[in-house]
Amino acid sequence: MTRVLLTGFDPFEGERVNPSWQAVSAVAAAPPDGCAVEAVRLPCVFGAALDALRAAVERADPDIVVCVGQAGGRADLTVERVAVNVDDARTPDNAGRQPVDTPVIEGGPVAYFAALPVKACVAAARAAGVPASVSQTAGTFVCNHVFYGLMHLIATERPSLRGGFVHIPYTTEQVLDRAVPSLSVTLAAEGLRAVVGSAVSRVEDIVMAGGATH
Amino acid sequence: MTRVLLTGFDPFEGERVNPSWQAVSAVAAAPPDGCAVEAVRLPCVFGAALDALRAAVERADPDIVVCVGQAGGRADLTVERVAVNVDDARTPDNAGRQPVDTPVIEGGPVAYFAALPVKACVAAARAAGVPASVSQTAGTFVCNHVFYGLMHLIATERPSLRGGFVHIPYTTEQVLDRAVPSLSVTLAAEGLRAVVGSAVSRVEDIVMAGGATH
Amino acid sequence: MTRVLLTGFDPFEGERVNPSWQAVSAVAAAPPDGCAVEAVRLPCVFGAALDALRAAVERADPDIVVCVGQAGGRADLTVERVAVNVDDARTPDNAGRQPVDTPVIEGGPVAYFAALPVKACVAAARAAGVPASVSQTAGTFVCNHVFYGLMHLIATERPSLRGGFVHIPYTTEQVLDRAVPSLSVTLAAEGLRAVVGSAVSRVEDIVMAGGATH
Amino acid sequence: MTRVLLTGFDPFEGERVNPSWQAVSAVAAAPPDGCAVEAVRLPCVFGAALDALRAAVERADPDIVVCVGQAGGRADLTVERVAVNVDDARTPDNAGRQPVDTPVIEGGPVAYFAALPVKACVAAARAAGVPASVSQTAGTFVCNHVFYGLMHLIATERPSLRGGFVHIPYTTEQVLDRAVPSLSVTLAAEGLRAVVGSAVSRVEDIVMAGGATH
Repeated sequence: MTRVLLTGFDPFEGERVNPSWQAVSAVAAAPPDGCAVEAVRLPCVFGAALDALRAAVERADPDIVVCVGQAGGRADLTVERVAVNVDDARTPDNAGRQPVDTPVIEGGPVAYFAALPVKACVAAARAAGVPASVSQTAGTFVCNHVFYGLMHLIATERPSLRGGFVHIPYTTEQVLDRAVPSLSVTLAAEGLRAVVGSAVSRVEDIVMAGGATH
Repeated sequence: MTRVLLTGFDPFEGERVNPSWQAVSAVAAAPPDGCAVEAVRLPCVFGAALDALRAAVERADPDIVVCVGQAGGRADLTVERVAVNVDDARTPDNAGRQPVDTPVIEGGPVAYFAALPVKACVAAARAAGVPASVSQTAGTFVCNHVFYGLMHLIATERPSLRGGFVHIPYTTEQVLDRAVPSLSVTLAAEGLRAVVGSAVSRVEDIVMAGGATH
Repeated sequence: MTRVLLTGFDPFEGERVNPSWQAVSAVAAAPPDGCAVEAVRLPCVFGAALDALRAAVERADPDIVVCVGQAGGRADLTVERVAVNVDDARTPDNAGRQPVDTPVIEGGPVAYFAALPVKACVAAARAAGVPASVSQTAGTFVCNHVFYGLMHLIATERPSLRGGFVHIPYTTEQVLDRAVPSLSVTLAAEGLRAVVGSAVSRVEDIVMAGGATH
Repeated sequence: MTRVLLTGFDPFEGERVNPSWQAVSAVAAAPPDGCAVEAVRLPCVFGAALDALRAAVERADPDIVVCVGQAGGRADLTVERVAVNVDDARTPDNAGRQPVDTPVIEGGPVAYFAALPVKACVAAARAAGVPASVSQTAGTFVCNHVFYGLMHLIATERPSLRGGFVHIPYTTEQVLDRAVPSLSVTLAAEGLRAVVGSAVSRVEDIVMAGGATH
């Protein structure tokens, strides 16, 4: 049995829900074969989110961690390639903090690559009928903060742990009157299940173009 | 029993499916209460599409006609407000025809408003959990062609008939690797069911802002 | 000497400038050969804008009227094809009015086509180095209101007058920190000069695809 | 006199021009006060672009290097924050090479931050009337390749050199009939001049939010 920890976030920026929490809850309730999945909800707060992640990892001792966040405006499920050591918030987090150009981890390296077979995860989501692609940036808000913190934890304390970050679009209920892209929670959860399945079953990635011209 | 005719289109521009046909088929298979729904598939061909629509109206003698088309790139279900008397094709239709600035109906008026409670239809789709909005243009390709032809038929021959046009986004299977907005067929059909229900139950529209600045 | 009346708008939606007024002022200051150009500034107010337009037409007795408005978010100069008989405002105008689904002109036809060689105007702007295209909708706010009112005036009272509507993007100074498309006032004015030149020199349009799929 | 090396690229993806080369040529022809600016044109080819950059740095021995590339579709001048050690091409480069998930520099760190006062550069461009923002990703094509190679050169061989990467939108002539954002070469050059001026005059950056939520 592979132990999988999934994290979602609290709602932020005035939203009433966060589809990342809805989707990881759905996966935990109906996990992929061979996986025991625990879902943990993180505050959308710099620092506190990372503390909660570390505590969850300590307690659950997972083999794989996939953190999930809402990417409002994106049209598909995106598997993040790289976490960058910078916090730079355009808007305050849920505790009113708004760091600008401060490192996630003082003295940490500039960036970490995800410890997931990113391309294989994308291919698996597509094969499950869920639009998906590689993302070249997780931004500089709490999502990237948690992603970088996770990768730093793996690099410095838990070398056998693997993991990464997935962004999902708004869910339909968030955009009923906004003409903005959405993905139903059902589809997002289906995509995450495929990502987890891929992460569990392979370490080496596949060769598939997934870059961006800029 | 209200007789409802729904039309969808053949795939075009190299697509393997057209979600409009998938969605209207789904609604015909599970119609709203009190409605007998027939689904008819139109060719994506100027002229021939309108001939097929007229034949279907003759045969089915419906109370309401809602024509449905694919709007690749749009993020939500859109109820069209106005049909314009012009064909102007950027790409050839499925028969290789590419009219430029010719009228749909020679001598017809410049435009017709939809004979649907457009705002109520939008509100009903949203209430059913489907992102929806009013569209101010149905374009100038085969969709607008059919929409205009339908409204001209109502205006000149079938004054008791009511109807209009709805655009739906790409379905998920069309955009697995494209990072373009999509709506599942399930959701599109749910939205269409709500639109039909609204069209059946009321003639007067509700007052709800749904315009565009430009 | 051809008499040309150009109109621009007051700033709205909290903007400090309106590039339509900047651009038409620039054209009036340096008109195309053979043209006497007058620029008039309209309030961004339903009703009052149309009153001001009518007064200007009465006074100036122009051969050609081109009304110009700001289309924030569009990337190029767009020549509008069709004006629709509806006011439907998402936000209040500068006098706090927010009509919803009321006609511009009670009893007027559903729509009017522009009395400009739309495609030739687009081609002329491009030939002058200005990105341009045909637009299928002028929206349902004050721009479309003025456009429809102009066309109704032509249709009912001034059959020898010709005219239409052009939308231009935000100017650069409006979007310095917004990552939204813009066009400099210099380029917008250059494009308008080409549109006016084309409108003056020909009545028949050219055949050039300029439609939209939806 | 500060020695500044600017690089632009050859056209690629079927374009006839590359605005990056047009803009850096314009800056070299009219440099900021106190700067001697040399412009060098790089091939849009993995490997060869970096070889040409290294040769130019050897020869010119600059104090500051700003590499510039075309970001088709972006609406403003963007100063890149971080270069990532990966080549992942969706399309072949000008020599037909299409690397997928290979490092720019074998054994190099995952990423480098730009050695420019990124926020000050953005603020300077805006103050010069040019829309500008921070970008969180330079993509994974030849632009990022050159950016990473430059930063690696600085980190390993030329510690006193400073530099980074700026993306500019399509120029107007590239998008006359495409309805895609553009920036004139004049404005792009004006923005680059401001970026260079800022890079020359300060090492410490200003504190100004410039991040992305995702």
